[in-house]
Amino acid sequence: MELEIVTIGDELLLGFTIDTNAAHLGRELAALGVRIVRRTTCGDDADSIKAAVRDALERTGAVITTGGLGPTADDMTKPAIASIFGQGMRMDDEILAALRARWLKRFGHELPASNEQQAMVPEGCTILPNRHGSAPGIRLEDAQGRWVIMLPGVPREMRGMLADTVIPALRDRLPTNGPVIRSKTLRTANIAESALADRLGELARGVNGLSLAYLPGSDGVDLRLTSWELEAREANRTLDDAAAQLRAKVGRFVYGESDDDLAALMLAECAARNATVAVAESCTGGMLGMRLTAVPGSSRTVLGGTIAYANAVKTRELGVSAEVIDAHGAVSEPVARAMATGVRLRFGSTIGLGITGIAGPDGGTPDKPVGTVWVAIDNDGEVHAVRAVLPGDRHEIRWRAAQLALDRLRKAFLREQDAEGWTARG
Amino acid sequence: MELEIVTIGDELLLGFTIDTNAAHLGRELAALGVRIVRRTTCGDDADSIKAAVRDALERTGAVITTGGLGPTADDMTKPAIASIFGQGMRMDDEILAALRARWLKRFGHELPASNEQQAMVPEGCTILPNRHGSAPGIRLEDAQGRWVIMLPGVPREMRGMLADTVIPALRDRLPTNGPVIRSKTLRTANIAESALADRLGELARGVNGLSLAYLPGSDGVDLRLTSWELEAREANRTLDDAAAQLRAKVGRFVYGESDDDLAALMLAECAARNATVAVAESCTGGMLGMRLTAVPGSSRTVLGGTIAYANAVKTRELGVSAEVIDAHGAVSEPVARAMATGVRLRFGSTIGLGITGIAGPDGGTPDKPVGTVWVAIDNDGEVHAVRAVLPGDRHEIRWRAAQLALDRLRKAFLREQDAEGWTARG
Repeated sequence: MELEIVTIGDELLLGFTIDTNAAHLGRELAALGVRIVRRTTCGDDADSIKAAVRDALERTGAVITTGGLGPTADDMTKPAIASIFGQGMRMDDEILAALRARWLKRFGHELPASNEQQAMVPEGCTILPNRHGSAPGIRLEDAQGRWVIMLPGVPREMRGMLADTVIPALRDRLPTNGPVIRSKTLRTANIAESALADRLGELARGVNGLSLAYLPGSDGVDLRLTSWELEAREANRTLDDAAAQLRAKVGRFVYGESDDDLAALMLAECAARNATVAVAESCTGGMLGMRLTAVPGSSRTVLGGTIAYANAVKTRELGVSAEVIDAHGAVSEPVARAMATGVRLRFGSTIGLGITGIAGPDGGTPDKPVGTVWVAIDNDGEVHAVRAVLPGDRHEIRWRAAQLALDRLRKAFLREQDAEGWTARG
Repeated sequence: MELEIVTIGDELLLGFTIDTNAAHLGRELAALGVRIVRRTTCGDDADSIKAAVRDALERTGAVITTGGLGPTADDMTKPAIASIFGQGMRMDDEILAALRARWLKRFGHELPASNEQQAMVPEGCTILPNRHGSAPGIRLEDAQGRWVIMLPGVPREMRGMLADTVIPALRDRLPTNGPVIRSKTLRTANIAESALADRLGELARGVNGLSLAYLPGSDGVDLRLTSWELEAREANRTLDDAAAQLRAKVGRFVYGESDDDLAALMLAECAARNATVAVAESCTGGMLGMRLTAVPGSSRTVLGGTIAYANAVKTRELGVSAEVIDAHGAVSEPVARAMATGVRLRFGSTIGLGITGIAGPDGGTPDKPVGTVWVAIDNDGEVHAVRAVLPGDRHEIRWRAAQLALDRLRKAFLREQDAEGWTARG
């Protein structure tokens, strides 16, 4: 099945709003096996909407629109598209009643007259209930089977209605064993794109006829496998097999899949060990603590930490000797180690994580350029430290430093497992 | 001047990539006075590109494309568009030489043969130099004056070339006093959209004939004034005057303009006072420290802080009495106050900021629902605390809590100014 997307709104054309609805629709429909052949964005005026949707209908006969269903005067989507189908508009009493009830319940007063037009719908349309907001979706189809589905522009509402109504309806129209576009992503940390390609060897250009994309980001390099031609079950099987082949080559640089968060994974590992964590942060200034405590339930594992931004704080709060700081500099292995051990002892945690570095833009030197970071982990007295020179701007360097600390914790756990003779995981 | 945008790439249609280029082009061109009447996204294949660009050219005669200029086989933009103009392709020796030099310099080896096609350009085109990457931009114009400008898809390169080449060229073609679309944004914190509307009274629907948009977000509600019809100088004057009228009504809820970051503003205020800061964070877990230290040069002002996630840490590290925690709960005014004062004394800073709250999703109670936050500021011994019940998910609640703490610091500084008889700022 092929269709086109039309996203409606001056805010989109003016760039005041980034069109995340379009990307979400693309992902969801591709995974279903629907091919989006073109996407159009037009302004809020009736003529633009009518022209854009008519053009799209003539090409593919199947169109999903987002936006322009609200109560304001510039929400022209319904009448504009109704006119393409030669339909007038009518007041829908059910929707009107629901709107009135919603307003009384939510805002404690009557529905403003200006909002009543939200209850106007095209003659002969199907109304798609919206559990996520006030404006229902609309479906129009003509005698030749050409159809338009109108969804709201508010991302939360659009996503909800897509899942509730649109995807199930489309699935019914699709061959059960038609080709779908499916992806599987392996997340790696602490290894460069080129080093990944070297390890992958002949797999670097693709596996099992799947395409392989390298997606470098602040978390590390993601490896995205995509199946373009296979039907769903076969696609999933092929992706799993290909992912296993990649893991075999890339090994322990893989820390997770799809949108796994390394902080959440490490918290789970800590919880499984009844281990507690404390952080000592200099250049990251709280970012590692923020990432760990972003995970619901982290209070069972994260005791807290010290943001030791000033050197005097490193000394007084974490017991990093001033002599060591003078001798080696605040960004050095002995300071990182002393921070990790200092915070572990001070907070009485099983694990202490220490980060010190130069996030820039200033403060770099020839031997310690901007991006230089020392990360140390004290795992119940066993201390490991690592140095890295991280790329990017200040935010990216800080994010990568926190990610590096979490990845060192992962490596420490893997070492434990090996020592205890457990099976090393991929 | 009207034009259309065509963004090219399967990754865009599939939703693997969010189309930020389109939004950037929209903002920059609107500010210049160019009206984007439609935006189209198509796949990487030559037929789709040719169809999308031809349609756009027929409608407006002026098109900017992004993407598909790279070295890979699926980068078909140049030949596809050349064919619309009835032009063939030729190898450009200058570009080829530049590519070869770039590869030797950057990667230390010869340009792969597969990359040579990056030096192929349409006959009769103008080559637009690209200081930001390897693929130059291309401009084609026909006898009727219809033109297409092709820009790379890499956002950094696209933005750079837009500023270097495209905007200056477009400006030359525009009437010097034509209408432009200009915006000015006032940033408010700690006041609801409805309360803003009440304060604005008759201004709520617009000022000086400018449109006024309410943009609620985690930082607070932004008020965006937009001028749609005026020429540049008049637009700026009208926006400034309207902003002044809004400030007069909204007063001290306005903390800044456009992209002002409250953390950066408060650090500047601290530096101006030779004040130092330390943070005590429970539910935010380091987010406030992260925001403050995200500002370059913050090390002059931010001493550090304590992430006091566990109650035992609040007591041992910050001197919050266990009895107080038992009596009032960890999320309470006395605990927030004790955290702010405790961290100030412990770190010897001028200012201590304390945050304790329930970020959810669990942990809420009828009298302390999820989102309940207490924020305290100890400004050199003068302590103020405030309670709020913040909306949103865990991340949003935490972000709003940090923003609230920064806003209380701002209020404390304003109180100082008043006490010292300085002019209160808007």
